[in-house]
Amino acid sequence: MHLYDSPMPAPNPRRVRTYLAEKGLSLPTTIIDLAKGEHRTAEYRAINPLGRSPALRLDDGRVVVESVAICRYIEHFHPDPPMFGVDPFNTAEIEALIRRIELRLQRAITMVWLHTHEWNAPHVKPQFKAFGESQKGEALIVMREFDELLAGREWLDGQRYTMADVVLLSYIDWAAFVGVAYPADFRNLRAWHARASARPSAAA
Amino acid sequence: MHLYDSPMPAPNPRRVRTYLAEKGLSLPTTIIDLAKGEHRTAEYRAINPLGRSPALRLDDGRVVVESVAICRYIEHFHPDPPMFGVDPFNTAEIEALIRRIELRLQRAITMVWLHTHEWNAPHVKPQFKAFGESQKGEALIVMREFDELLAGREWLDGQRYTMADVVLLSYIDWAAFVGVAYPADFRNLRAWHARASARPSAAA
Repeated sequence: MHLYDSPMPAPNPRRVRTYLAEKGLSLPTTIIDLAKGEHRTAEYRAINPLGRSPALRLDDGRVVVESVAICRYIEHFHPDPPMFGVDPFNTAEIEALIRRIELRLQRAITMVWLHTHEWNAPHVKPQFKAFGESQKGEALIVMREFDELLAGREWLDGQRYTMADVVLLSYIDWAAFVGVAYPADFRNLRAWHARASARPSAAA
Repeated sequence: MHLYDSPMPAPNPRRVRTYLAEKGLSLPTTIIDLAKGEHRTAEYRAINPLGRSPALRLDDGRVVVESVAICRYIEHFHPDPPMFGVDPFNTAEIEALIRRIELRLQRAITMVWLHTHEWNAPHVKPQFKAFGESQKGEALIVMREFDELLAGREWLDGQRYTMADVVLLSYIDWAAFVGVAYPADFRNLRAWHARASARPSAAA
């Protein structure tokens, strides 16, 4: 397997690196520099026609795309420690958490990113700045839900560090980068963030 | 198992009905009428604190939420016909397709829905109408990608009707409801839509 990866602050490839570090795995890797537009080259589009990072090329040439799909693929061959659940119910809990994070929190942060951040001014025409600013409040509403969920829990599923934590970490840090830091009184989220950030995998 | 379901045009509960129909399963069901606000009652929040439909209550009282997580849970116990993949690569393909549909197409349609549809005027304040209108074009960009993907394919994964088709059908029909019908020259998508709509499960 060969990984196509991109550096911080990109949240999507980071999830795969964090996952691999939790598994103690390392893969041969090619860096696709998004700032240099390397994801838009014909060479990379031959790997991933959508021009997105990350991607995982298998030894037979087939390519797996989408961060969580890549990790779940690897999970089939490296089940320990379990990152996608230990039984059907826990698997469903983790998938539901990931969906809440990505369909609601990620959506709001992405809207802030696209419509307020200067990096996107050349790409997103027009930027709807007032709309983008309004989505900071939406992101904080979802972050507060996770703050409440984390009361009395070390990790999101209440049992162990899973893919849901990997996903949330990627977006909490990305949110801060795009200008949506959670307030100090989100104490459970802050404590969780400190625990997740202290794991060696967070620096991968 | 007991299903909490809501009628059309809601796309999320529809996915579970379509999935169950493909499996030939039926579950005892309670209808949660979203138009009447039944998802916001204390009674329903005791089942699903997030107040969203669908939800699946297990016989031991635990609750599974989120449409795709509910279906993947059921898949563990009813694997035939396979709707989430037949091997690790196919499973990853289907998850990647679902992510493309939900993180990109669903996002654009949801923005049109929230920011242009009169039903949301009382709930979304303010509605950013110009932004919402702009997202119709975003939705069509993603629909065109799926039109291209479907060239020469009967179903999205190129092999069989899967959860990815269930998810896309739910959003294509919901998009038409909110005012984003795909143009007639999306021939592959149109043919796929006719095939998917002709399955008995589409009427579930």
